[in-house]
Amino acid sequence: MSPPTTRRRRRAHDPESVLATAVGVFNERGYDGTSMEDLARALGVTKSAIYHHVPGKEQLLARALERALDGLSAVVGDERAASGGPAIERLEWAVRQSVHILVDRLPYVTLLLRVRGNSRTEQAALERRREFEGFISRLVKEAAAEGSIRPDVDPALVTRLLSGTVSSITEWYRPAPGASADDLADALLKMTFSGLRV
Amino acid sequence: MSPPTTRRRRRAHDPESVLATAVGVFNERGYDGTSMEDLARALGVTKSAIYHHVPGKEQLLARALERALDGLSAVVGDERAASGGPAIERLEWAVRQSVHILVDRLPYVTLLLRVRGNSRTEQAALERRREFEGFISRLVKEAAAEGSIRPDVDPALVTRLLSGTVSSITEWYRPAPGASADDLADALLKMTFSGLRV
Repeated sequence: MSPPTTRRRRRAHDPESVLATAVGVFNERGYDGTSMEDLARALGVTKSAIYHHVPGKEQLLARALERALDGLSAVVGDERAASGGPAIERLEWAVRQSVHILVDRLPYVTLLLRVRGNSRTEQAALERRREFEGFISRLVKEAAAEGSIRPDVDPALVTRLLSGTVSSITEWYRPAPGASADDLADALLKMTFSGLRV
Repeated sequence: MSPPTTRRRRRAHDPESVLATAVGVFNERGYDGTSMEDLARALGVTKSAIYHHVPGKEQLLARALERALDGLSAVVGDERAASGGPAIERLEWAVRQSVHILVDRLPYVTLLLRVRGNSRTEQAALERRREFEGFISRLVKEAAAEGSIRPDVDPALVTRLLSGTVSSITEWYRPAPGASADDLADALLKMTFSGLRV
């Protein structure tokens, strides 16, 4: 009996699996509503063994939020975001990347979008999230300044609506064959940049 | 001392004020995280007097969700939604109405969008919410069938993205002078139906 159990345990309790399980529980019960006991149950370990597997609730939250935020920071730091091409194309590229990050890191981004700033960890995450929004906002303003975005809509409002359209994907998207991130990004970009009307 | 206190109490504890206060607490703490003690504190009454003012937590939830859902049902039942004009125009009208309802009933719609089906009350609300989404979905399909929506995007995806764009407004919109529901609806309709690109 013993060896398969040991193997199964080892597989399920490497740091990556622990993080993935924890994020699932946080998203289901809410971070504040999750106890160490809930985490122990989800990981299938006893309450007394939980600290052997889990560094602490807030550290798990920090790691999970990093997973989402590092993806967004990579977009801001990418040379395709900074290069001299038309701002409208850099904006479309950045929006497409953010859809990809959302799909690839769905539970992590879902958790990030629910953070309200209830701790230092959450406040730091909100700060980094605002940096990404500032980046999108600058691209929208540049695109407006170069004349490639319709002038009859406030750029600040465009930024909010665009970011909201992307974020809302977490509310309904579930990975499935034939529901690729690229098709989703295509549909979103067509709707928001070219419009639904024929 | 007594008369002004009594007057103040009466003003603050009519059913409408109780509901508004409760919705504020539900949105701040989460419905499941709100205790009758939290409601008593927010209403400024003692814990022992709370049932004199509040019919019960779940009844308050039901009333609050109704406030949001009745607005959406009125859109579905309006003759402008059913009349024989082009589906694309009825769709734009319905999306505009949903922005107005969201702005006019912001805390109630915010609460509705957070409901996950944890009780009969929540399940009934989700059912009514799905009816509204079904209504938008039918309008999108009709608009696609009449050839007024671009054929290269799946109507089901369009419905999700459009509804998500509207819902996401609850995440950032705060009533302010100069931030009218109609301006917001204009910007949203321009972006999604005509597109941002010049």
